[in-house]
Amino acid sequence: MSYFKEINTIQFEGKGSDNPLAFKHYDPKQVILGKTMEEHLRFAVAYWHTFNANGTDPFGAPTMVRGWDQYNGLDRAKARVEANFEFLNKLNVPYFAFHDVDIAPEGATLQETNKNLDVIVELMKDNMKSSGKKLLWNTVNMFSNPRFVHGAGTAVNADVYAYAAAQVKKGLEVGKELGAENYVFWGGREGYDTLLNTDMGFELDNLARLYHMAIAYANEIGFDAQFLIEPKPKEPTKHQYDFDAATTISFLQKYGLKDHFKLNLEANHATLAGHTFEHEIRTAAINGVLGSLDANQGDLLLGWDTDEFPVDLYSTTLTMFEVLKAGGIGRGGINFDAKVRRGSFEAEDLFLGHIAGMDSFAWGLKAAAKLTEEKILDNIVDNRYRSFKEGIGAEIVSGKATLASLEQYALQNNPIKNESGRQERISLILSEVIFSV
Amino acid sequence: MSYFKEINTIQFEGKGSDNPLAFKHYDPKQVILGKTMEEHLRFAVAYWHTFNANGTDPFGAPTMVRGWDQYNGLDRAKARVEANFEFLNKLNVPYFAFHDVDIAPEGATLQETNKNLDVIVELMKDNMKSSGKKLLWNTVNMFSNPRFVHGAGTAVNADVYAYAAAQVKKGLEVGKELGAENYVFWGGREGYDTLLNTDMGFELDNLARLYHMAIAYANEIGFDAQFLIEPKPKEPTKHQYDFDAATTISFLQKYGLKDHFKLNLEANHATLAGHTFEHEIRTAAINGVLGSLDANQGDLLLGWDTDEFPVDLYSTTLTMFEVLKAGGIGRGGINFDAKVRRGSFEAEDLFLGHIAGMDSFAWGLKAAAKLTEEKILDNIVDNRYRSFKEGIGAEIVSGKATLASLEQYALQNNPIKNESGRQERISLILSEVIFSV
Amino acid sequence: MSYFKEINTIQFEGKGSDNPLAFKHYDPKQVILGKTMEEHLRFAVAYWHTFNANGTDPFGAPTMVRGWDQYNGLDRAKARVEANFEFLNKLNVPYFAFHDVDIAPEGATLQETNKNLDVIVELMKDNMKSSGKKLLWNTVNMFSNPRFVHGAGTAVNADVYAYAAAQVKKGLEVGKELGAENYVFWGGREGYDTLLNTDMGFELDNLARLYHMAIAYANEIGFDAQFLIEPKPKEPTKHQYDFDAATTISFLQKYGLKDHFKLNLEANHATLAGHTFEHEIRTAAINGVLGSLDANQGDLLLGWDTDEFPVDLYSTTLTMFEVLKAGGIGRGGINFDAKVRRGSFEAEDLFLGHIAGMDSFAWGLKAAAKLTEEKILDNIVDNRYRSFKEGIGAEIVSGKATLASLEQYALQNNPIKNESGRQERISLILSEVIFSV
Amino acid sequence: MSYFKEINTIQFEGKGSDNPLAFKHYDPKQVILGKTMEEHLRFAVAYWHTFNANGTDPFGAPTMVRGWDQYNGLDRAKARVEANFEFLNKLNVPYFAFHDVDIAPEGATLQETNKNLDVIVELMKDNMKSSGKKLLWNTVNMFSNPRFVHGAGTAVNADVYAYAAAQVKKGLEVGKELGAENYVFWGGREGYDTLLNTDMGFELDNLARLYHMAIAYANEIGFDAQFLIEPKPKEPTKHQYDFDAATTISFLQKYGLKDHFKLNLEANHATLAGHTFEHEIRTAAINGVLGSLDANQGDLLLGWDTDEFPVDLYSTTLTMFEVLKAGGIGRGGINFDAKVRRGSFEAEDLFLGHIAGMDSFAWGLKAAAKLTEEKILDNIVDNRYRSFKEGIGAEIVSGKATLASLEQYALQNNPIKNESGRQERISLILSEVIFSV
Repeated sequence: MSYFKEINTIQFEGKGSDNPLAFKHYDPKQVILGKTMEEHLRFAVAYWHTFNANGTDPFGAPTMVRGWDQYNGLDRAKARVEANFEFLNKLNVPYFAFHDVDIAPEGATLQETNKNLDVIVELMKDNMKSSGKKLLWNTVNMFSNPRFVHGAGTAVNADVYAYAAAQVKKGLEVGKELGAENYVFWGGREGYDTLLNTDMGFELDNLARLYHMAIAYANEIGFDAQFLIEPKPKEPTKHQYDFDAATTISFLQKYGLKDHFKLNLEANHATLAGHTFEHEIRTAAINGVLGSLDANQGDLLLGWDTDEFPVDLYSTTLTMFEVLKAGGIGRGGINFDAKVRRGSFEAEDLFLGHIAGMDSFAWGLKAAAKLTEEKILDNIVDNRYRSFKEGIGAEIVSGKATLASLEQYALQNNPIKNESGRQERISLILSEVIFSV
Repeated sequence: MSYFKEINTIQFEGKGSDNPLAFKHYDPKQVILGKTMEEHLRFAVAYWHTFNANGTDPFGAPTMVRGWDQYNGLDRAKARVEANFEFLNKLNVPYFAFHDVDIAPEGATLQETNKNLDVIVELMKDNMKSSGKKLLWNTVNMFSNPRFVHGAGTAVNADVYAYAAAQVKKGLEVGKELGAENYVFWGGREGYDTLLNTDMGFELDNLARLYHMAIAYANEIGFDAQFLIEPKPKEPTKHQYDFDAATTISFLQKYGLKDHFKLNLEANHATLAGHTFEHEIRTAAINGVLGSLDANQGDLLLGWDTDEFPVDLYSTTLTMFEVLKAGGIGRGGINFDAKVRRGSFEAEDLFLGHIAGMDSFAWGLKAAAKLTEEKILDNIVDNRYRSFKEGIGAEIVSGKATLASLEQYALQNNPIKNESGRQERISLILSEVIFSV
Repeated sequence: MSYFKEINTIQFEGKGSDNPLAFKHYDPKQVILGKTMEEHLRFAVAYWHTFNANGTDPFGAPTMVRGWDQYNGLDRAKARVEANFEFLNKLNVPYFAFHDVDIAPEGATLQETNKNLDVIVELMKDNMKSSGKKLLWNTVNMFSNPRFVHGAGTAVNADVYAYAAAQVKKGLEVGKELGAENYVFWGGREGYDTLLNTDMGFELDNLARLYHMAIAYANEIGFDAQFLIEPKPKEPTKHQYDFDAATTISFLQKYGLKDHFKLNLEANHATLAGHTFEHEIRTAAINGVLGSLDANQGDLLLGWDTDEFPVDLYSTTLTMFEVLKAGGIGRGGINFDAKVRRGSFEAEDLFLGHIAGMDSFAWGLKAAAKLTEEKILDNIVDNRYRSFKEGIGAEIVSGKATLASLEQYALQNNPIKNESGRQERISLILSEVIFSV
Repeated sequence: MSYFKEINTIQFEGKGSDNPLAFKHYDPKQVILGKTMEEHLRFAVAYWHTFNANGTDPFGAPTMVRGWDQYNGLDRAKARVEANFEFLNKLNVPYFAFHDVDIAPEGATLQETNKNLDVIVELMKDNMKSSGKKLLWNTVNMFSNPRFVHGAGTAVNADVYAYAAAQVKKGLEVGKELGAENYVFWGGREGYDTLLNTDMGFELDNLARLYHMAIAYANEIGFDAQFLIEPKPKEPTKHQYDFDAATTISFLQKYGLKDHFKLNLEANHATLAGHTFEHEIRTAAINGVLGSLDANQGDLLLGWDTDEFPVDLYSTTLTMFEVLKAGGIGRGGINFDAKVRRGSFEAEDLFLGHIAGMDSFAWGLKAAAKLTEEKILDNIVDNRYRSFKEGIGAEIVSGKATLASLEQYALQNNPIKNESGRQERISLILSEVIFSV
């Protein structure tokens, strides 16, 4: 059965094509800096936004009716699996990603929920085999069910914590079964609404305990996916514990978890935390924890997670520039944690949204490759810091300098001459590069 | 000579007094939870806001003309010293805090600058001795002089870095000479304006090198002050490296500095980073790095550091509640990093502003003591987490639980019962407590 | 049948009571400045938050299960009516407010929807008669149903516009039938998500047309409620046309609607627009369009409408101060457009939340009355502007002055002497006043 | 004398040139949609940012030393005039704009200040004549001098108001003398810091009185410039009265000033108010008050006015699209109210910054012309609203429809069919268009 029968496989038609259902920039097999675009970008479709979302928002009912909505329960779950693989095929995307509750309905008991999962995982496995599509990452949803009202790994109630642990266990088993390349923890309700009734230190200790248990269990079952934590500063809770990359790194360090986790960074979460996406990527990279990316964009004039498809070429270029500088995205990928607007409710919009994101990222990759290959920014940076390559600068970097030796130097080094940072010029260069590839 | 001759020593007159130049809440010798108010609060006057600021803002010229403005150069610096001690005496404040450039004018050379400092430090030392006033902390200003246009400890230019190091050396010597209880690093321009021309990893490495040199030198000269870093997320740079408490902790951990530093947290910096002040204090406390507080308040509808005197009793109460919970402020204090509004340009406003802040903090201390003594919030918290005291909860906390054991538990534990978090009720209780002390 | 059988009628027990289900400040019959508290405050319960909301948020399922949830369709609607009147009675609240879809289920056709409404309106009318409770305002929900995906009065589709108009017509009829004192327009989706596909000028013209039709129809049927527009800057759309009070006033002026509408201002909408609530009230008052208030509070560190119960006494005091300055709230009231937190899911929290809000507003009223009666702020203001009472100031105010006459004056008037605005002092006074009532 | 002797006249070299001191997009004489680029864009240099600013910020001293800084007082003012015309010539910019205090030093008295102005205006007039350069607008600075600490046209002190009026009088005379095409009012300190000590209604009445006097005086002296008000939401005051376009329009309407004023909109002010720049332009246009533009850009992650040179092509394209849609910028222009970063302190950066802004705007103009000519967005919009062109839609637009007639229609019109808004697709088209010009 086809859920997108009006839509043909999306082809690369190149710049100048005016076919809305074609790629103008994303050419999976095009080689850039020694790898194909497909290898660089490792695109994934987010199951929840594409096959579960229906356009509901806090002020309105669903606007989207899909082919699979004619079914219920497990039947609908099966239909979604079919739709997923049809979508990945037609869109030329190699990966997908999901939460447990996205793919199978929750039952009245944990037993029943797990049984539902088993059915769908089996079906999914078959489809993966036949299609060659792969699971970029899976995770478990420990935030939507009302039992998690006060958190999961940071629950105030030990029974809830135990349930969450059981869910993580199943999630790891599912990941192993499907050969997930990564396993993600997003702390949906790991945070607080008011500090007045919250024992933050205790909750964080408990969260770390859960992560240690997860590592132990993954080892036990031989599940060797890369573990990822996804920072977000707020929403749904007032304060989410994994506020941003730096906060998450401080947590990992404190609890001896830094060797076991990398970060899954999201553009819209970065801006909600007051950072650019490239800042978060750089922070992760220089701390050795760049794992994977959730690609989307927020509206900086709005204060909530809008999860829009990424279409700003400045941002996609700088994102890919940071990825290239870090040596590539590794076992991670570019997962479209993005949803079509509530007003873009037609099935075709699912394709148009992804095409917009994929083409924008492919474009960004090309611009980033040019920046990298021609050392456009690197030369600027190298020149700016050149004084650290010799003399007193080299002594500082080598660790030989002391306050006293530097004072001696400074006392006789007068005046000091600085140079312009040339920010305006560099900004225009960036536009020129983006729009010339 | 008197610079505030119209103003008498501020006395405690208690609630009901309508004398604007009197304390209604701050009674230094009143004992609360076993310590005097003075010991709990350890108030400090910020030299720069009180004796250097003149009401300039990016859109306007100075509005404030003070008695010491009749002098220039070192004479003005000496007059400010006198004014400082007169002010501390009349206000009943035991501590003060300064940057090097606040107290002595910069000369044409580092030599001259240091000579100016020596003159003033000598004078200050005499005044401290005779008055009994103490230095809560000192620091050096490595951000105002144009040489620091691209940073100091994170400068792009090794000559600038060397100069900064020399300045830190002198700062440590000054701190030792005056018996400073703390020494502060606020990264004025340690950050970036655009990542496009910035090597963030290299800059942070260099910053850590400077801190290690400072520790070594303090040890060498026997200066045993508590070292503090003051987080701020942005302004003047787009991104300040010490964004918030968690970011700074991750930096300290990475570079092996965590045993040597605590944090100097500021209310307005907290809110600019998207946090409440109490969140930042709690974060520092549970990580063992609560050092000292810069007391002020921001305007949450504005996006810059307004450094207003702290007058919101909700905030002062919760601040002091966190301080009491952490066992007190230790060697730190409550430093009024707050400035009178540009429109509050009369000398009397300097007193009225500090009285507003001191009375609000004394009031907050009393309310926090009531919350603490009567375990009003503690009982709520204890009850909320009680399931972790026995059974499966105790197993989780003890580290005995595994994903498998928790799954076993969860499979037979159905349904789970949660309880209301009672946020609305608790919020009203807070008002009742604040306004009943 | 009782839906809140555990809860007794909330009594006034006064300060010092530790009964959570009692008023400590709200005493309906207490006379303040010549009117009872009940008359000043005219409290209303918001039907949607209290009887329809269930704790859903964009990341989670319902947490709240109420007595009426055992029923479906019209039966549930009838149960909610009963619950409403029980709630109003037990809480001592005289008013309620609703959208059409809150009280009766939408049918498959407009005909059926209207029939459902008729059944419930009839039942409500009986209950109003027997209980003495009144309808502060009603409105129609033209934003939740998917048909309104692109707006209602600003729809891109004339069929949707027509449907909206039909719904307004019925809303006016319902309001008349139930004796609503006000009728509210909140432009749920009257705005845009991107200007790229939007004809803003045309949409606003159409919106004005709808308002003119509504006025005409209300006149036709003799419905003399006060018409209100409720500003909000964003959410659900990126830009809501009724951004804030000033924007709405400019709209009313442009389209000749200013004599027919007043404003229903909401605290959380004010702060989302970058204003204090008191600013919005003052703006409405000086433009003669202060209509009614939606009482709640937002979290200024979050960027969405949190609709929390108002518990900040600074805000409730300043709100009531503005209301008293404007001569009272008139035909409007204080409607609790506030919802209990998702974690406050017990029925008792509905009472605790409203008590928190009502007591905070009663407290604020008392403090505002003291400010007003003792002219605490008025004296400050009068003194500040005193130069406009005579001489050149009086000439300016009278309209006699010209640039030339003022230049003549200025040329000989040197120097000019200003006075401190005393903001710090005034802020402390405000705390003292709130405390002392 | 030359102040920029290292810099040659900036030439158009076209795309592909790698000369940083050349235009790649701005070709003044290139004809687009029937007008030259120069005529479309009417660029102006802002005197204050270019010739007065020195890199000071709230945390640091000047970083910029210019050729004219070797002089003082009137001599420096004269040197700046020379520099201005050299700069305009080399940059190929036809217009400039200034505040009174930018061009001539304030004296000890108003008399002296005016005398200084006369000297410089005379010199400027000569230079304008010889160079052909023109004054886009002038204004007076009524916010920097400490006398304006509590406002100017909204001062609390009648003496200050009189002084401001005298200054406006002189400003109008200067504008007439120099043939200014516009005269701007930016309410620097027309706002409040706290409502507690402010009579907002009275202050706004006074502001309107000042505007009426200005209109009368301009008529009297035959100065026929277009009058402009420049909205800004906050900074320096907490609340600026001219918050945004809509607020300013409501003010103009209330006080009978709408026929006499248009708006001078600024990009960074728009975003500080929570709007896109294109929103503000559209708002002005549909209200008939689009006057002129202050071109710059803010950083949406920062909360203050950063006044960066505009380099975001999405924004310059949409700005010019709105301008073209409105029929052009008329007597207004594109004034670079933008400053080089504090770190871009070399004289060359002044050119590089302006080139970045001019090229980005020229590029945006070309993209906007393509959008306009090919009706790319217009066709989308026309199609979306097509239902209003006939039938029930046409009746709505004509004003014939009533609630009753629309209800009749709606009752029989079931179901309603909506269409996708296609936001994702349109966003990608926008990138494609910008790229392809």
